[in-house]
Amino acid sequence: MAKKVVTLGEILLRLSTPDKKRFVQSESFDAIYGGAEANVAVALANFGLDSYFVTKLPDNPLGDSAVNYIRRYGVKTDYIARGGKRVGIYFLEKGTSVRPSKVVYDRAASSITKINVDDFDFIEIFKDVEWFHFSGITPALGENCIRFIQKAVEVAKALKIPISVDLNYRKGLWSKKEFEKVMIPLIQGVDVCIGWLSSVEEVATTGIEDFTSKDLDKERFIKIFSRMRKKFNIKYITTTLRENYSASKNGLSAIIYDGNELHESKKYTFHIEDRVGGGDAFASGLLYKLIKGEDCKEALEFGVAASVLKHTISGDFNLSTEAEITELLNGNTSGSVQR
Amino acid sequence: MAKKVVTLGEILLRLSTPDKKRFVQSESFDAIYGGAEANVAVALANFGLDSYFVTKLPDNPLGDSAVNYIRRYGVKTDYIARGGKRVGIYFLEKGTSVRPSKVVYDRAASSITKINVDDFDFIEIFKDVEWFHFSGITPALGENCIRFIQKAVEVAKALKIPISVDLNYRKGLWSKKEFEKVMIPLIQGVDVCIGWLSSVEEVATTGIEDFTSKDLDKERFIKIFSRMRKKFNIKYITTTLRENYSASKNGLSAIIYDGNELHESKKYTFHIEDRVGGGDAFASGLLYKLIKGEDCKEALEFGVAASVLKHTISGDFNLSTEAEITELLNGNTSGSVQR
Amino acid sequence: MAKKVVTLGEILLRLSTPDKKRFVQSESFDAIYGGAEANVAVALANFGLDSYFVTKLPDNPLGDSAVNYIRRYGVKTDYIARGGKRVGIYFLEKGTSVRPSKVVYDRAASSITKINVDDFDFIEIFKDVEWFHFSGITPALGENCIRFIQKAVEVAKALKIPISVDLNYRKGLWSKKEFEKVMIPLIQGVDVCIGWLSSVEEVATTGIEDFTSKDLDKERFIKIFSRMRKKFNIKYITTTLRENYSASKNGLSAIIYDGNELHESKKYTFHIEDRVGGGDAFASGLLYKLIKGEDCKEALEFGVAASVLKHTISGDFNLSTEAEITELLNGNTSGSVQR
Amino acid sequence: MAKKVVTLGEILLRLSTPDKKRFVQSESFDAIYGGAEANVAVALANFGLDSYFVTKLPDNPLGDSAVNYIRRYGVKTDYIARGGKRVGIYFLEKGTSVRPSKVVYDRAASSITKINVDDFDFIEIFKDVEWFHFSGITPALGENCIRFIQKAVEVAKALKIPISVDLNYRKGLWSKKEFEKVMIPLIQGVDVCIGWLSSVEEVATTGIEDFTSKDLDKERFIKIFSRMRKKFNIKYITTTLRENYSASKNGLSAIIYDGNELHESKKYTFHIEDRVGGGDAFASGLLYKLIKGEDCKEALEFGVAASVLKHTISGDFNLSTEAEITELLNGNTSGSVQR
Amino acid sequence: MAKKVVTLGEILLRLSTPDKKRFVQSESFDAIYGGAEANVAVALANFGLDSYFVTKLPDNPLGDSAVNYIRRYGVKTDYIARGGKRVGIYFLEKGTSVRPSKVVYDRAASSITKINVDDFDFIEIFKDVEWFHFSGITPALGENCIRFIQKAVEVAKALKIPISVDLNYRKGLWSKKEFEKVMIPLIQGVDVCIGWLSSVEEVATTGIEDFTSKDLDKERFIKIFSRMRKKFNIKYITTTLRENYSASKNGLSAIIYDGNELHESKKYTFHIEDRVGGGDAFASGLLYKLIKGEDCKEALEFGVAASVLKHTISGDFNLSTEAEITELLNGNTSGSVQR
Amino acid sequence: MAKKVVTLGEILLRLSTPDKKRFVQSESFDAIYGGAEANVAVALANFGLDSYFVTKLPDNPLGDSAVNYIRRYGVKTDYIARGGKRVGIYFLEKGTSVRPSKVVYDRAASSITKINVDDFDFIEIFKDVEWFHFSGITPALGENCIRFIQKAVEVAKALKIPISVDLNYRKGLWSKKEFEKVMIPLIQGVDVCIGWLSSVEEVATTGIEDFTSKDLDKERFIKIFSRMRKKFNIKYITTTLRENYSASKNGLSAIIYDGNELHESKKYTFHIEDRVGGGDAFASGLLYKLIKGEDCKEALEFGVAASVLKHTISGDFNLSTEAEITELLNGNTSGSVQR
Repeated sequence: MAKKVVTLGEILLRLSTPDKKRFVQSESFDAIYGGAEANVAVALANFGLDSYFVTKLPDNPLGDSAVNYIRRYGVKTDYIARGGKRVGIYFLEKGTSVRPSKVVYDRAASSITKINVDDFDFIEIFKDVEWFHFSGITPALGENCIRFIQKAVEVAKALKIPISVDLNYRKGLWSKKEFEKVMIPLIQGVDVCIGWLSSVEEVATTGIEDFTSKDLDKERFIKIFSRMRKKFNIKYITTTLRENYSASKNGLSAIIYDGNELHESKKYTFHIEDRVGGGDAFASGLLYKLIKGEDCKEALEFGVAASVLKHTISGDFNLSTEAEITELLNGNTSGSVQR
Repeated sequence: MAKKVVTLGEILLRLSTPDKKRFVQSESFDAIYGGAEANVAVALANFGLDSYFVTKLPDNPLGDSAVNYIRRYGVKTDYIARGGKRVGIYFLEKGTSVRPSKVVYDRAASSITKINVDDFDFIEIFKDVEWFHFSGITPALGENCIRFIQKAVEVAKALKIPISVDLNYRKGLWSKKEFEKVMIPLIQGVDVCIGWLSSVEEVATTGIEDFTSKDLDKERFIKIFSRMRKKFNIKYITTTLRENYSASKNGLSAIIYDGNELHESKKYTFHIEDRVGGGDAFASGLLYKLIKGEDCKEALEFGVAASVLKHTISGDFNLSTEAEITELLNGNTSGSVQR
Repeated sequence: MAKKVVTLGEILLRLSTPDKKRFVQSESFDAIYGGAEANVAVALANFGLDSYFVTKLPDNPLGDSAVNYIRRYGVKTDYIARGGKRVGIYFLEKGTSVRPSKVVYDRAASSITKINVDDFDFIEIFKDVEWFHFSGITPALGENCIRFIQKAVEVAKALKIPISVDLNYRKGLWSKKEFEKVMIPLIQGVDVCIGWLSSVEEVATTGIEDFTSKDLDKERFIKIFSRMRKKFNIKYITTTLRENYSASKNGLSAIIYDGNELHESKKYTFHIEDRVGGGDAFASGLLYKLIKGEDCKEALEFGVAASVLKHTISGDFNLSTEAEITELLNGNTSGSVQR
Repeated sequence: MAKKVVTLGEILLRLSTPDKKRFVQSESFDAIYGGAEANVAVALANFGLDSYFVTKLPDNPLGDSAVNYIRRYGVKTDYIARGGKRVGIYFLEKGTSVRPSKVVYDRAASSITKINVDDFDFIEIFKDVEWFHFSGITPALGENCIRFIQKAVEVAKALKIPISVDLNYRKGLWSKKEFEKVMIPLIQGVDVCIGWLSSVEEVATTGIEDFTSKDLDKERFIKIFSRMRKKFNIKYITTTLRENYSASKNGLSAIIYDGNELHESKKYTFHIEDRVGGGDAFASGLLYKLIKGEDCKEALEFGVAASVLKHTISGDFNLSTEAEITELLNGNTSGSVQR
Repeated sequence: MAKKVVTLGEILLRLSTPDKKRFVQSESFDAIYGGAEANVAVALANFGLDSYFVTKLPDNPLGDSAVNYIRRYGVKTDYIARGGKRVGIYFLEKGTSVRPSKVVYDRAASSITKINVDDFDFIEIFKDVEWFHFSGITPALGENCIRFIQKAVEVAKALKIPISVDLNYRKGLWSKKEFEKVMIPLIQGVDVCIGWLSSVEEVATTGIEDFTSKDLDKERFIKIFSRMRKKFNIKYITTTLRENYSASKNGLSAIIYDGNELHESKKYTFHIEDRVGGGDAFASGLLYKLIKGEDCKEALEFGVAASVLKHTISGDFNLSTEAEITELLNGNTSGSVQR
Repeated sequence: MAKKVVTLGEILLRLSTPDKKRFVQSESFDAIYGGAEANVAVALANFGLDSYFVTKLPDNPLGDSAVNYIRRYGVKTDYIARGGKRVGIYFLEKGTSVRPSKVVYDRAASSITKINVDDFDFIEIFKDVEWFHFSGITPALGENCIRFIQKAVEVAKALKIPISVDLNYRKGLWSKKEFEKVMIPLIQGVDVCIGWLSSVEEVATTGIEDFTSKDLDKERFIKIFSRMRKKFNIKYITTTLRENYSASKNGLSAIIYDGNELHESKKYTFHIEDRVGGGDAFASGLLYKLIKGEDCKEALEFGVAASVLKHTISGDFNLSTEAEITELLNGNTSGSVQR
């Protein structure tokens, strides 16, 4: 019997221009659905877990399409509430070479912003659950979402369900101050925290939003992660380290701190087909291995290889299998035709 | 020198499923821009008039795309204000045969709802203008839009510019009571009113929203139109009469009342490629001929033939030329290849 | 809690030429998945039932895609066995006007032909099931399939689960003699039989494969259905009556015999977008209403209206909602835009 | 061994807007190759004859593509000369319903206008040939083409090869006077002439270019055809009779005069997918049966049924098989799915 | 009020194979419009200038489409004459990796070759103009074009309008001798000349058509440019320096000589989406900054960055904004997603 | 008169996901036809030889499409037998970057496996033939194919026709032991053998299936090739050496041994559009030059350059011209636009 896991967040309609066209050139959009937390839910289902996604979607054909889109990839949608007026949208212009991708958000007043604790039966949702995952984007969507996530975290903690959180600070949605005020109580005692709070660093120069891997040396990471671990009683703190050569080419590795050691993964350099969801692929790869009980170093390597493969796949989702990720992780980057 | 005309309203992003797919089947949308008033502005430009469209659009690439989309077909966009957060959207699932087309609106909080009288220089806009057109949809979009349209109508009337209004009552946007309260002062003294108010009929059984041509006989129309004409001091009252055989086949004719006579147009039966914008094509065909100074009976016939041709064209816009419409009007419905 | 229903059969990869191209013109295929029984399973899920589909598919990415394709539309795929070498394929050239559609089957040696009774836990599958549906196509696929369907029917009957069968005789797969030999024991005592056996008619001129509605008058139908009902102890016998005007236009009605009366449905004439799956849409509409406990006459009307709407939808599946079918059934065939 | 036939003429690049878009809407063109005579050559190859097409095409990748396009459908391209600067082009906007299709020609100065008698070895080309076909379009393309066609006809007549000509008068290319001056010597003694000369009629009111089937009664046809037959010593004179209901729906029949009797074919009414090449499909169906030695009445029926099926196929070519045409001719217009 | 600028030249229909297909594989073409001078006009409009394009186009739907295509991107088309028979065409097969792109021109006898000085009111066109741009391609199109461009340059010089010329020598259109004979009088006294004449170099080894940046050292450039500057009284002479690594990867920088110094820009290495129009993007970026009054060194850097971004955009046009170019110019080549 | 060459083997329907989508994402397939030997036949026709392809295909529209697909590119299809039930299929998911391409074969029981010596007139087929090519894939398809290839080789040897064989060992189809048992008699005395048998190496560590260019040094190659040459009396033994950097980037060179010397070609590094058919492009380039009588070193260089260009072309076929390959071979890898 597959392990039951629960992820909570928003799923958006993604409208991207085809063939790397600019917005002003395009007379059609590729239409799929995705979002930081939905991407994790799909990847976990794809790895074979019994993966439930919790959200609120309008009771119209676009809401139906969003449900179908993740159901297709194996996510259980039984706990999705229906109501509100609209599916949040993000428009994506895929970049290439020195031209960056552009995202235009149109997510205000989406159904999840009308989410209500009473729409859900938490006892039912969290029954037999072996992992709960959420991100810092959901509470940025307003008071209803904050109350909802607080309730969910409270119940999960009460039931001693392992919890992971991807901080995912988005400066377009709220200030760093609001962010920390809401997030700090939520991350208390979680098992895995992806990202860190800039406020735990004494010197205020390095924040979340303007971080690149060149900014921090290993010693500094250990100091920050160690302080954060203690302060919030978190088991693992982890982050990816990305090098942006161009919109078509990136380098990627990751680190995880377990209290004793800062483990560093292998680093990959690769061409990019679709960059969106790369971080979520890392999160889901890492979590999958931790849920299976493997140690954090192996989970880290699996997460990074998963993320790299995601970059070669169109759409938000990492549709790689465990076998494919393992093959990449074992060093086969040759791309030979597999017959 | 072409005559200058001004149309005011919202332009929406239209996202329609390709190949008559249902919403839940589609993984892409055809993306164009349209809306009742923009459709009129484009058709008038296409007939050769110096056609200006006034609206408010966000200062982002989607706003740019909307501007470009009508500029391409010759509309002058100099008076479009930029600001607000979003382009209104409507999703369209094209029906066929006995399956009706479906529209899902997602237009709340669009940029035009933030429109402000002070964003515009009415003296400049209405300078040398020979016709002004608006519709009953715009004031349904909220207080800002009502104030804006009131100001525009006030200036146009002061400058003695001929005015046309397409009542376009949409029950999803406001109640009939709100509608009449706002619209009645606006239609006082206009030259052309498309549609009629149900309240002018003594017997309350026939309203705008549930009207079909079978419901009214000629005598009744004359009574209603005549009463309305006198009450509001309107020169012409007109409406199309549609027969819905299926999503693929319709019948269409129209009537106009000039105070003396109720003129009835020829009736056409035809297959449908895209029904959206059919009413706007009628309005613009009729207005074009009235602006050119032709008599209302000829204008009516031209409007109906224009509308019929529109139904054979994908998208919201009537991209037929005057010559093509005239040929249809003269009886050539053979569809022979033109070499 | 939705009622649990089980359908059993093959799901095929359907490769159809786009834009009504002929096979020899086409350089791409639209690729979806469907099949007589899968189409019923999807429609029942779409109506809100807890619909399980039982089959065998290869453990490769095409097998995954077939699973995903029905999961997307809500079908439960927990009981699908994986194994064998290939997904059966049918190539479809969509006809139009006087040019008929053409199907080229390439389904020999597909995974379902390797199906094995021991791959399945029937006690688990039929637990709490309120309806079981199968068709005459599955046993035509060979000995393994015959044994499998015999076992399934045996268990379902033992558990007193209502059963429906769509005879679906396909002369390309087996002879009428083989067909009757296998099917007669299977249909003993079922609740609903769609189609009839030509052998129950004394005069041998009218068989299943060459039937058109013009061939039989009402009296004759009553005689055949009544004889069949008694002989095999079947509750309802039903069939659609189709009039083929062209590949683009059909007439459709249906009849059902309940032992007392031969009920005839309304007849529809309509244009066709995709004819494949029209019969399965009738079956699933009829079954849905019977499962819900409505009487056979209402079920018949719903089934026919469901089938008509299916013809307006691309692909094998009827993706109409109950509300849409009911609206058509109530006489709204106008195709007006629904806003 | 298949019979060798030779057709001579121009093959053009056809650029048509997809999805019935108008020219001003389209950002892509479907690109195929066709032309009155090439269409006949392809259909004859498709029926199994050893069909050679003679023309001149530029020695560039577009010329290569034109060669490949007919080679794909079985035409022998050994006698195509390469040279000149350009492939002629025609732009096609497909109409629908009351909106007619539009053709914009861009064929001036194409390679065939530079054709030279010395580019070809007529002894080799006409060796063992059992039929030669040309049309009145080729000599309209200028002096080189006239000289070329004169030479070809001269050699074919000397070798006693049966000849057919499709008059195909195009008023955009030359005057009726020039047309008759050039064509009359060419049609002397041919076996089949499709169309007739208006000058053979005493009363000058009815010409080729403005003919519709309503204009002539049977008696009049017999008079004209009989006069023409005698004057030019032609075996069969034939023409299609088309009724244009709309761009989507036509009626079609044909007549042939053999000196004794005016045979009239069955008449079909049908929906249209692509009207271009409908006349050429008639010609090739008729010629195919005459080449096979069948009588003119059967050939006529086959030609009309071939033409009707062509109207259901995209592109210029009739890709129907003999069996399909025969089935239609035998009355099966039901469009039932063929499995 | 935006500054008015005028560009003069031909706009061609560009038919390119999709998905990097070879000509012989493709059954469709992407259809856009472009050309050296039109590309400059669009870029200048895109930067916010009041940009007019002057040309002649046929009065048919393809001419309409060409007008619409640039109007969409903001170009003013008031001064475009309509007449002649055809839009010039160029067919493009996009290369990749070691396979070069191929262009097949089909532009002979296009409408611009029938251009006539009397079609235009130069007083009106050049009223309030602050910059005039043309290229060496237009006069290569024949006597009418030479006379036209001579008249335009004469009027512009008389009105003391700053002038820029892109030499754009095309060996397929005329000989270097004819080129110099026509161009030398035209470039006398212009403000900006892009490219140089090989005849100004004493040693005849380096010509325009076979130049690569490796062929010339800095000293040699200064000598050539200095001589040319004096001889023709030109303010700035400039050129891009391209390194062709493959069809997918190039290096690009540029130089400008102002009489005192040879300024060299930054050099970029980048992957290519569409190489066509790269030189025109440089020209328009440089001109835009000069028109705004910035110094030539800044204009040069802006021009090169504009050109680099163009290479990442499909089609002939540089649709980058000033802000995007500035960001690249400031060193951000990371391609990070912009949210 | 072009030289006649004969190639024998299977042609498969290739169904590939568009836009590098994964199988589970794709709702359409690009559909072309190819296969190791058909790819050689097309390339030889494309170089101008009189190239015949011998195979068996079903007598249905998919068989017709396969014939048409190679006929289009100039292959003579006169000797293709029709019969059997199905066209073999291979599904292709194109990889990119670190994600490899995946092939799913569905070729069992295809028509060629039913091939029969008596279906063919070998005297007619091999009349005037100047080269015969086959591969080790065909005899892997079963007893019928073995018997057929044995007969073909026997006749070709009797007629002293030069023979080439591409060993193409596929471990999915048969064991290495079966492979050697069948192939050794067939390769006796052939002119060209592409690949080598692992059994000729004393040390058993290096086999065909697990070879990469890093495994063998030059000395070792000479030893193996020399032994093989003598043992089987083969004129030339050759192989490509591939370096797989990723699915998007490869290195390629080749070696040939003529009994005296091991010639090594230039090595290319390049980006990949479509890797399938790269080996067949090498074979056909090499064979073409040998058939033309050029020496083996030049043939080797031409073969490698042909293969490199193939990698930039979508589909299985090398559609490069001799001139294009020669230009690459001469060092022009710049990818500059060719006008």
